[in-house]
Amino acid sequence: MQLLQTLCQIAAPSGNEALLANFLLNYIHQQKSNWNASPTVLSGEEFQDCIILVFGKPRTAVFAHIDSIGFTVRYGRQLVRIGGPDVEAGYRLVGQDRVGAIDCRLVVDESTGALSHDFHREIERGTELTFYCDFRETESTVQSCYLDNRLGVWNALRLCETLQDGIIVFSCWEEHGGGSVAYLAKYIYEKYGVRQALISDITWVTEGVHPGKGVVISLRDSLIPRRSYIERIRRIAEDAGIPHQLEVEGSGGSDAKELQHGAQPWDWCFIGAPEDNVHTPNEIVDKRDVNSMLGLYQVLMREL
Amino acid sequence: MQLLQTLCQIAAPSGNEALLANFLLNYIHQQKSNWNASPTVLSGEEFQDCIILVFGKPRTAVFAHIDSIGFTVRYGRQLVRIGGPDVEAGYRLVGQDRVGAIDCRLVVDESTGALSHDFHREIERGTELTFYCDFRETESTVQSCYLDNRLGVWNALRLCETLQDGIIVFSCWEEHGGGSVAYLAKYIYEKYGVRQALISDITWVTEGVHPGKGVVISLRDSLIPRRSYIERIRRIAEDAGIPHQLEVEGSGGSDAKELQHGAQPWDWCFIGAPEDNVHTPNEIVDKRDVNSMLGLYQVLMREL
Amino acid sequence: MQLLQTLCQIAAPSGNEALLANFLLNYIHQQKSNWNASPTVLSGEEFQDCIILVFGKPRTAVFAHIDSIGFTVRYGRQLVRIGGPDVEAGYRLVGQDRVGAIDCRLVVDESTGALSHDFHREIERGTELTFYCDFRETESTVQSCYLDNRLGVWNALRLCETLQDGIIVFSCWEEHGGGSVAYLAKYIYEKYGVRQALISDITWVTEGVHPGKGVVISLRDSLIPRRSYIERIRRIAEDAGIPHQLEVEGSGGSDAKELQHGAQPWDWCFIGAPEDNVHTPNEIVDKRDVNSMLGLYQVLMREL
Repeated sequence: MQLLQTLCQIAAPSGNEALLANFLLNYIHQQKSNWNASPTVLSGEEFQDCIILVFGKPRTAVFAHIDSIGFTVRYGRQLVRIGGPDVEAGYRLVGQDRVGAIDCRLVVDESTGALSHDFHREIERGTELTFYCDFRETESTVQSCYLDNRLGVWNALRLCETLQDGIIVFSCWEEHGGGSVAYLAKYIYEKYGVRQALISDITWVTEGVHPGKGVVISLRDSLIPRRSYIERIRRIAEDAGIPHQLEVEGSGGSDAKELQHGAQPWDWCFIGAPEDNVHTPNEIVDKRDVNSMLGLYQVLMREL
Repeated sequence: MQLLQTLCQIAAPSGNEALLANFLLNYIHQQKSNWNASPTVLSGEEFQDCIILVFGKPRTAVFAHIDSIGFTVRYGRQLVRIGGPDVEAGYRLVGQDRVGAIDCRLVVDESTGALSHDFHREIERGTELTFYCDFRETESTVQSCYLDNRLGVWNALRLCETLQDGIIVFSCWEEHGGGSVAYLAKYIYEKYGVRQALISDITWVTEGVHPGKGVVISLRDSLIPRRSYIERIRRIAEDAGIPHQLEVEGSGGSDAKELQHGAQPWDWCFIGAPEDNVHTPNEIVDKRDVNSMLGLYQVLMREL
Repeated sequence: MQLLQTLCQIAAPSGNEALLANFLLNYIHQQKSNWNASPTVLSGEEFQDCIILVFGKPRTAVFAHIDSIGFTVRYGRQLVRIGGPDVEAGYRLVGQDRVGAIDCRLVVDESTGALSHDFHREIERGTELTFYCDFRETESTVQSCYLDNRLGVWNALRLCETLQDGIIVFSCWEEHGGGSVAYLAKYIYEKYGVRQALISDITWVTEGVHPGKGVVISLRDSLIPRRSYIERIRRIAEDAGIPHQLEVEGSGGSDAKELQHGAQPWDWCFIGAPEDNVHTPNEIVDKRDVNSMLGLYQVLMREL
């Protein structure tokens, strides 16, 4: 889990994903000679801070968003949310402005809910703050901020090791309204004819989804995927004997929103481990669910 | 109205429109030899469960969504909405899971508003339930669940009988956030250069729109169409002497949302009969408004 | 400021921008021989009521929306909002229907907030009403309805006088959900390879943004632009010594929404003078901020 820890520690709030994109590009260039197949790597200004890896003759694309939630410094000590972070007074926040490194605590006004920081000096307007990463691993769990979605990124990177045919996409802005999947999806569909997608992301422990019971195949969230595609995936998971759980939600979203609303006929399915303490510095996932997530992706990329 | 009754009885909640799409494909292949002109039929995986019919040299496209509202079975007996169904305790719901046919009643928790069903056994997670169809016809009205939008589909099919030049589109997901019109609109604009649209859908009886007073031309709903296009349509309707009403709303939407927000310069206008008891099992429409709807579409497809 | 006054007086509520588009086309054809470079003018049905001007070898596109907020007449005396106008009883509203000119007052029901007008006769259903333009100029300020965004349009037109390389876009529907930038952005990216945008629009005076302190560079609003692009712009503004302020908001939007969500990898930044009395008939802007806005656009179009 050394790789996962490194991923969790790199700041990449929505809109400022460059650091993590650079780490991934370096990692990919170092590791790809060890992978079963060597991908074409697409990156650069036309893809902003996103990366596409194309293996063999792709039929399915995996989308993993690299951005995270956080906070933007407004005026004085005020903070504005990036995405939907949980807000609890005392959460440790870190960042960097032109003056230097920042390490402070989240302050929540009890009556108004207004957010601010307690740093000893003014922080430059527009600076992003992210949760301090306290990575904790036990025999059965991993716990950290930003498992959503560094675990989805980790899953995609591990999948690269054995992948023969398929596309891996590292996307941006997912936590804050989206903004990259629309053009990535268009490019992939037009260039490779691929219109099957898997969303490698992290979901929620709920009354119907339990830690340790296997990776989650989401039948719906705020959006409803095409039923016939979901049914194919369920059959493959059942036939492969991989532990999994079925989720049905009325809210929540993912990179799939942009696939659903884009101008290509994408079929998509959200498949990911469930976590507890969602969008806090203490997100926790059961390792068995991490394993079944990777296992299911390996099977699906062969059989879909 | 036998065709309309058949259309209303086929379950096709958003995301699972395959049954109705198959019915339509069969109907089209059986009937098209009786039509004045023979269309090119576009369907298949690149169009998911949508269908496009191209007649002659098209200048205008008619969009009719084939999906409906409904409910998804969540955990235990819980239900989650598909689109925005009216919820009243006792509504009869039907469906199908791997165990067999389902026939039950909607339960609404009076204090929390939480939705559930009363079926005698657990229903498989993710199963869709739809309103039981009790189709009622009088001399002056039709009443059923899902007149929205099986009546819009019926109007489009009847229009096919005499259509010389134009495109008919059967779309999916309209009731639940959309997801097909973006790619259908792109395909049609790029392939046929068509950018004029009519939305064949059902609207509301309100203080300004009355049953029996004619088909509704909507001047706006939550979105505002381009004024100059609407004015052309109004003039054609007036010159043809077809009974019609003008609607002005601040809310509500249709397949036009995806046309308005897509990356082609579509002009669009919502034109449809008004119904009462919207999104209940008892939607009711005046037959005079059905007749003027079809009449206006016939004129517009010739003159626009 | 004669040009600005003329722009503020032309009615162009979202969806009915034809009058202002025609004025702009005439203005452009009359003035372009006086400009340093002569642009290609793109307009017509494929662009609805939008206009694109292409100068030299463009690297950056400026978007200025020409539409405004207003009201649509519903049933009886009822009004429905176009965009988000401020509503205060007594605001003077003007318009035109088939019967003749309209000049009336806004009525706000104190208990329900319902909107209506007090004109002496019924106004034709669907007629748009806009604020009466009372243009006021002092040595240091301009004040009028619709400075948002006629001042952004004015800035773009003034920029044309000296522009060598770049694209100027006049867009529609910005105040009411958008609907033109998606296709304009696609056209520009595919035809000219341009993916850098500046949003020429008006923002808000707040606790962190003050009149007279210079044009505003927005670091974020409801959406978050790509950080690396914003940093380039800040450096250019600093090096040029142009007075400017940095804005950080959690709400608000602009034409940038469609760039962010569209299927091209646009980098964008909102840059505009701040106004007080937002979306009222009394919007007011400091002339120093108008000057630094134009000055910054001139520099950026050379150096970006």
